[in-house]
Amino acid sequence: MSQDIRIGMLGFGTVGTGTYRMLVDNREAITKKIGRGIDIAKIGIRDPKKERALDQSHFTTDLESIVTDPSIDVVVELIGGIDPAADLVEKALLNGKHVVTANKELIAKHGSRLVHLAKSKNLDLHYEAAVGGGIPLIQPLKHQLAGNDVIRMMGILNGTSNYILTKMEQEQADFADALKEAQAAGYAEADPTNDVDGIDTSYKISILASIAFGKQVPVENVFREGIRNIGITDIEYARSWGYKIKLVGVVDAIGKDAVCVRVHPSMIPGDHPLASVNGVYNALWLHGDFVGDVMFSGRGAGSDPTGSAVMGDLIDVGRNIVGGGSGSAIPYEAGMKVVPIDDVHSSFYLRLRVKDRPKTLGQISMVFGEYAISIAEMQMKTLPDNLGEIVFLTHRASERSFAQALREVENLEAVDQVAGVIRVEDKQ
Amino acid sequence: MSQDIRIGMLGFGTVGTGTYRMLVDNREAITKKIGRGIDIAKIGIRDPKKERALDQSHFTTDLESIVTDPSIDVVVELIGGIDPAADLVEKALLNGKHVVTANKELIAKHGSRLVHLAKSKNLDLHYEAAVGGGIPLIQPLKHQLAGNDVIRMMGILNGTSNYILTKMEQEQADFADALKEAQAAGYAEADPTNDVDGIDTSYKISILASIAFGKQVPVENVFREGIRNIGITDIEYARSWGYKIKLVGVVDAIGKDAVCVRVHPSMIPGDHPLASVNGVYNALWLHGDFVGDVMFSGRGAGSDPTGSAVMGDLIDVGRNIVGGGSGSAIPYEAGMKVVPIDDVHSSFYLRLRVKDRPKTLGQISMVFGEYAISIAEMQMKTLPDNLGEIVFLTHRASERSFAQALREVENLEAVDQVAGVIRVEDKQ
Repeated sequence: MSQDIRIGMLGFGTVGTGTYRMLVDNREAITKKIGRGIDIAKIGIRDPKKERALDQSHFTTDLESIVTDPSIDVVVELIGGIDPAADLVEKALLNGKHVVTANKELIAKHGSRLVHLAKSKNLDLHYEAAVGGGIPLIQPLKHQLAGNDVIRMMGILNGTSNYILTKMEQEQADFADALKEAQAAGYAEADPTNDVDGIDTSYKISILASIAFGKQVPVENVFREGIRNIGITDIEYARSWGYKIKLVGVVDAIGKDAVCVRVHPSMIPGDHPLASVNGVYNALWLHGDFVGDVMFSGRGAGSDPTGSAVMGDLIDVGRNIVGGGSGSAIPYEAGMKVVPIDDVHSSFYLRLRVKDRPKTLGQISMVFGEYAISIAEMQMKTLPDNLGEIVFLTHRASERSFAQALREVENLEAVDQVAGVIRVEDKQ
Repeated sequence: MSQDIRIGMLGFGTVGTGTYRMLVDNREAITKKIGRGIDIAKIGIRDPKKERALDQSHFTTDLESIVTDPSIDVVVELIGGIDPAADLVEKALLNGKHVVTANKELIAKHGSRLVHLAKSKNLDLHYEAAVGGGIPLIQPLKHQLAGNDVIRMMGILNGTSNYILTKMEQEQADFADALKEAQAAGYAEADPTNDVDGIDTSYKISILASIAFGKQVPVENVFREGIRNIGITDIEYARSWGYKIKLVGVVDAIGKDAVCVRVHPSMIPGDHPLASVNGVYNALWLHGDFVGDVMFSGRGAGSDPTGSAVMGDLIDVGRNIVGGGSGSAIPYEAGMKVVPIDDVHSSFYLRLRVKDRPKTLGQISMVFGEYAISIAEMQMKTLPDNLGEIVFLTHRASERSFAQALREVENLEAVDQVAGVIRVEDKQ
C-alpha cells in the first residue's frame, strides 16, 4: 500500500480529540475505505503545556508551519472563529492542501471565496462538521437532494439552546437556572451569547441556505432573535395549545431568486417532527419540490459526533486523492438576495400584562382590528396587584403589521407590559 | 457549454416520469450544478401503444439497443426485478456507460459483482433510489458516516406496510380492510406479497447492511416475517403498553465480522423516533460508535421523491463526467457472514386464546419458567364461549428459548390458539 495521507491538524480540542480517537479506534476500516492510511502527522496548538493524548513530537505552536509544510496533504482546521483560521485555511489552499473544517463562522462568512479558491486549485474543501455535528446535512443537500428546488428549511441547529429549552419545559426551570445547568453539564460556555442569542444558528442556517440556493447568504442579513426572553409561562401556554418552543433557523424561498433567512424561537406544533427533537439533539427539516418533506436528526455537537463528521470528510478527501476527483465541488457565488423579515407572514403568540379594568380587552382588540390581525385563540387570567394576563394566538399576519400593532398595543394606557412575543408555526 | 450528457432510460413508469418531470421543471438549476445539460435521449419501454408525456421518437422497445448505443453516456435502469434488468445493466457497464438504478432487488442480489464491474471500468454505478425513495441514505452511509462502526440500524423501509399498519391503528381497521384501502389509494399492488411479507424490506435492509459492513449480505440469510398476522387487537394491546407496531428491517453487528439481519413487525416504544413515522413515510434509525443515534426520514416511495433520488444520482454522475472522479466507489465483497436469528435476544409480546379454567395461567407460567423466560407485563380477559385471552410481555430472551417455550405452550391442552407473537424493542 502506498504512503499514508498526511494530515496537519489545527487545534486539538473537543473535535480534534474525537477525530483522533475515531481514527485510532476504527483505523483498519477507515484505511480500507480510503484505500490508503491516514497519518495525523502534525497538530498545531496554542498551549504547549497542556496534557495531550499523543506524543509531544506531534505538536507545534507554529500553525503557519503546518499549512506551508510540503509533506502535508490535508489540513484539518478545528480552531474556530475567523482569526487566524481564515488566513490559515487560505494559506493551506494556496499551498496546495485539501482542507476539512468544522468552522461554521468561517464558511458562513467566507465560504464562497474559499470554495472558489479550492476549486481553482483542484482541491477539496469539505465542511460537513460545521452544521449539525454528526448528522449528514451539507453533503446530502449538495448531492442527493440537488435536483430539488428547496421551498423551505427549518432546523434546530444549536444543541445548547435546545438543551436549555428542553430543561425549562421538562423541569419547569426558568431560563437562568436552565442555563446554569447547561453550563454545569458542559453544554454551555461561560459566555453563552453565541448559543442563546442565535448567532451560532445564524451561521449554520446561512450555510445551509447558501448550499440549497447556490449563493452565499450575507450573515448580516439574517434576522436574529435569541431565547433569553422565553419564560416558563410561555412554555406552559404553548403546551396548553399543543406547541413546543424551539430555537429554529428558517429559510423560505421568496420567488425565484431570493430567500428570507431568520433565527428565532418558534412555537412548533406538537406533531411536527421537530417538536420531539429534545436536549442536545439537532435536526433539519426540509421541504423540496420533488422530494417533499425530509428530516435528518442526531447529535449536533460533541467530540465523537463532530469527529465522525470530520472523519467522513477526511475519508471523502482521501478517496479523491487516491481515485482522482478532487476539486469536484460546485462553487457558489456571493451575494444571495435576502429579503427582510418584514414581509414574512406568521401567526404570533403574544402575552400581555394588563391593568385589570374595564375596556382593556376591547381596546387591544380594536388595535389588532385596525391592522387586520385576527385572533385565533385567547386566554386571560387575573394576577395579583390589580393586574391581569392576556395571551393571544393570532392568525397569520405580516411581521410589519404585527410590529405596528404591537407598538400601539404597548402604548395603550391599559397595557402594563408586553411579556412575550413568539412566532408560531401553523398546525397542518 | 459542451455537449449534453446523453441518458438512456430503461422503463418509463412511476419513477421514470418523476425523474423526467424533475428534469423539465428544474432544468436550469440542474444544468448549473452539473456544468453541462442532461438530455434524456432514449427511453426503452415494453408497450409502444401506451400514451406518453413525450414525443414518440424518444421511445423504443429495443432495450438492448440503448445499452449498446455508443452515443449514450448514462443508463438509468428503472425496470425493476432481475430479468432482464441484470443483463441490461451488465451490458451497459461492459459498453462503458455509467449506470443509475432504483432497483433494490438487483443491488441486493448482484450489487457486489456490479459495483466491482463498474469500478474496474472506471464507471459510476449509483443506486440511491433503491432504498428509502427520496431520503438520502445510501450515500450518507458511504460517505459522511463512513468512519463509524455501525452498531445497529433499524428502518421502516416499506411505505405500503407502514400505510396499512397506520390505517389499522388510526381507523381500527383490520389487515384485510387496510390492505384494500392501500390498494384503492394506489399504495399497494394487486398482489401485495412483496410489500406485506417483508420481501421488499429484506432487499433494502440487505443493501444498507452491505454498505455499512462492507460485504454483501446474502438475501436468503435474512430472517423475514410479514404483517399479515397482525390484528387490531395486537395494535390495541401495544398501545396500552405504550408501543406502536411497525414493520422494521434490523441489522445488528455481531462481534467484529458478522451481522444479524432480519425483517419482522416490532413493537416500538412510543418515544422512539421511529414510532411516529406514519403512513407512506420511511425512516432509517442508526447507531454508530462515534456519531451516536442518527435518523433520516421522508417519503420512501412515489414518483416525485424517487425521481428526486434518481436525479441526485444523475447530478453526481454528471459532475464526475465533467470534473473527473468517475468510478470512485469502494466496491464491497460478497459473502457477509450472517448469523441466524436464533441467538438474538428480544423481548416478546405473546397473545394466547386459552380455555377459561383453573390452572391455565399456572401451566403457561411454568413452561416459561423452564426456559428462564420472565414475564414483564400481563393482561387477561374473558372471551365468549368459555375462552379467555392472556397477553404477555416478556423480558429479554433468545429467539431459540422463546421458540421452544412457545412450542410447549402451544401444545398445552389449556391453550386454544397462539393468536399473536411480536418482537418488542425495549424502552430506554
